[in-house]
Amino acid sequence: MKIKLEKDVLTDNNIAADYNRELFKVNKTLVINLMSSPGAGKTTLLERTIEKLSCEFKIGVIEGDLATERDADRIRALGAKAIQINTHGGCHLDARMIAKVLPEFDLDEIDILFIENVGNLVCPSGYDLGQDHKVAVLSVPEGNDKIPKYPTMFNRTELVLLNKIDLLPYLDFNVEEAVSDLQGINPSSRLIALSATTGEGLEGWFNWLREAYKNV
Amino acid sequence: MKIKLEKDVLTDNNIAADYNRELFKVNKTLVINLMSSPGAGKTTLLERTIEKLSCEFKIGVIEGDLATERDADRIRALGAKAIQINTHGGCHLDARMIAKVLPEFDLDEIDILFIENVGNLVCPSGYDLGQDHKVAVLSVPEGNDKIPKYPTMFNRTELVLLNKIDLLPYLDFNVEEAVSDLQGINPSSRLIALSATTGEGLEGWFNWLREAYKNV
Repeated sequence: MKIKLEKDVLTDNNIAADYNRELFKVNKTLVINLMSSPGAGKTTLLERTIEKLSCEFKIGVIEGDLATERDADRIRALGAKAIQINTHGGCHLDARMIAKVLPEFDLDEIDILFIENVGNLVCPSGYDLGQDHKVAVLSVPEGNDKIPKYPTMFNRTELVLLNKIDLLPYLDFNVEEAVSDLQGINPSSRLIALSATTGEGLEGWFNWLREAYKNV
Repeated sequence: MKIKLEKDVLTDNNIAADYNRELFKVNKTLVINLMSSPGAGKTTLLERTIEKLSCEFKIGVIEGDLATERDADRIRALGAKAIQINTHGGCHLDARMIAKVLPEFDLDEIDILFIENVGNLVCPSGYDLGQDHKVAVLSVPEGNDKIPKYPTMFNRTELVLLNKIDLLPYLDFNVEEAVSDLQGINPSSRLIALSATTGEGLEGWFNWLREAYKNV
């Protein structure tokens, strides 16, 4: 019975995800589902991305959090459109939540839509939102063991952004080991090391987005 | 239908939690359910705790992770008994998983049992494991906004251990604001600031455990 219900939930989600995907395709909107542990730096990364790329692309953001409008407010302060979804205890966004807020965007006018998922390295990875790409942010203070310990996240993401490399001098983190662990778990995935605080490595992420946009 | 099933799942969990609680009480075992985001430093904190307190208390550990035996191996290396539970994608431990592994401990011989939950700031908080105390670890690099953004965790924990205070000079984190946010969300909760790496503040945590053990 439990398995049947879970199947139903995922079937419903996948129908909504397909609907979202079709809408994104028609409007030529590149959609990124950004996932990470709490505090890995997703919102700061989006702030830097909007600052740099808003002259090249029209950017929209959907923010997922259990509570508060804090993240959406940070994005709005930079002049980008942001919609906050509060899950009220829910551990991930699903495709129906996304479908529900899409009418608030003029998608035809949005080149890149970022969906910042709930901070959680487990649950969000299992739900297709209709995105073009799933991107995980891993931060240096979380430690090297997160890639092998959270395989359901890292074997489903095409790109891992290793954030907070400005803290490498103060912590015991081995970047080569992270690259090698990621290769072992997901050979088609790529890792870009960067710091949203200092700006180091951000150009690699911006170029990845530019390439991804060409293929929409 | 969905609501009914969730109720059933929680009812089953609570029956198992009550069973565990009775077993802990009979054996005079203090049980701590330790929760946090991935990489907040739960295992390192347990390593330091075992090193310091193993002459005062017999300590056992249950480790919860999606995959690998890494955390249990780290605990065993210090000579403490550790059982690893792999959830294979599951985002939290539940009371039945705990009940299933308890026969592997000689509880009569264990003074303090730590249950290190899956690294996740959302799901674990909803499941009673039969523990005496729920303790959350929050780490400085995660940022000040985690307490208001994850209320379902922080309004259910009696104690918050603010870890990695050795990184305060390099990050924008305000300890007073964290204390004030916690008071706002959960007036009966307490915060102890510490660093499992440098040892600063650990004595407060050890004393809290000594007091908690007196009340078992």
